[in-house]
Amino acid sequence: MRTTELTDGGHRVIVVAVDKGEDAVSVINDVANRSDIRGARVTGVGGFHTAEVGYFDREARDYVRVAVPEQVEVLSLLGDIAESQGKPALHVHTVLGRRDGTTVGGHLLRGEVWPTLEVIITEVGGNLTKQVDPETGLALLNAPGTQTA
Amino acid sequence: MRTTELTDGGHRVIVVAVDKGEDAVSVINDVANRSDIRGARVTGVGGFHTAEVGYFDREARDYVRVAVPEQVEVLSLLGDIAESQGKPALHVHTVLGRRDGTTVGGHLLRGEVWPTLEVIITEVGGNLTKQVDPETGLALLNAPGTQTA
Amino acid sequence: MRTTELTDGGHRVIVVAVDKGEDAVSVINDVANRSDIRGARVTGVGGFHTAEVGYFDREARDYVRVAVPEQVEVLSLLGDIAESQGKPALHVHTVLGRRDGTTVGGHLLRGEVWPTLEVIITEVGGNLTKQVDPETGLALLNAPGTQTA
Repeated sequence: MRTTELTDGGHRVIVVAVDKGEDAVSVINDVANRSDIRGARVTGVGGFHTAEVGYFDREARDYVRVAVPEQVEVLSLLGDIAESQGKPALHVHTVLGRRDGTTVGGHLLRGEVWPTLEVIITEVGGNLTKQVDPETGLALLNAPGTQTA
Repeated sequence: MRTTELTDGGHRVIVVAVDKGEDAVSVINDVANRSDIRGARVTGVGGFHTAEVGYFDREARDYVRVAVPEQVEVLSLLGDIAESQGKPALHVHTVLGRRDGTTVGGHLLRGEVWPTLEVIITEVGGNLTKQVDPETGLALLNAPGTQTA
Repeated sequence: MRTTELTDGGHRVIVVAVDKGEDAVSVINDVANRSDIRGARVTGVGGFHTAEVGYFDREARDYVRVAVPEQVEVLSLLGDIAESQGKPALHVHTVLGRRDGTTVGGHLLRGEVWPTLEVIITEVGGNLTKQVDPETGLALLNAPGTQTA
């Protein structure tokens, strides 16, 4: 993993090149923790050698895991970073493309990168916070008012 | 719906947590109107309990409607807000993921949120305008020159 | 093609309306060259009349081409612009939606626009560079340190 941190105006933009064999989720979490990111948009494109995505099951209150055991293009990696229980929390979804152009996607649980994943993390200019929702057990975004950074 | 409005440099970033049971399109339109947004990028991830997407039919000059009557992950919500006939106009497309990881998508017509939809609206730093295209009847983006905000 | 160049803080945001019959890849490359963009996020939505996407074959070290010879919604166009061998280099992936809501996607090789493609190019606030990876022959993002723009 190699990162470039740019600052422009009041917010930071962190560009991450995730390398072959690294797990995308671990790397983005690492970067978020090291750079102490508390409110950001995340986008990315690249490829995975193997991946696992999730679908949140309403009754089970847990993710159904869908394995993607093949080389795929990362057509879209999209989400955000907010603060949950005092730490940066990553929430990214992905759409993956197979050799024939068909797609598969979900909440990104694991993605072993090959040959690269190019991620751009853009701070939104203030802290975002999450709170546990009693119905689902998920930490959901809380956006309760107006902040000026 | 809960919103946080951040300002950073000359432009605003509006973060919207769309709540259970709310329609994503109505909520984003409401926020765009209240905050008088005339030029922005829109991204989002989350889940829908039921949704309807559209495909623009070239001959009929209208959207074919595709119903998605099931819980899906919102893998990608992407688009923009511009000004059309004096008001903010939202144009967002979406890719949705089912329990088995298969996907369905289109122009977002309606999406009943569950359990959350996390939307980030980033002003581009100037006004964007749309104009009705006589061939299709659609309001298309007009980007005729160079502006400095 | 019509473009609006906005400047906000230290970076530029370039909004591109790609017109009927134009190729999305050529147009975005043209804009990147004319505006000399060396580090940016790219997003877009719209429609293609016909398109071609690619899947990188690990053994062949080349893209398998998947033809999409029909009118599709551009559900997501996502990627970045960096500098490779002294010139702006575009890397965008796409997810396309058919009449029945099914999707197809890949690395965008060619997309003939109809009726519009609305692209937003946001500079990240510094230069990004690519370097050829000997294993794949691909120019991969290099993000080796910390820059302050």
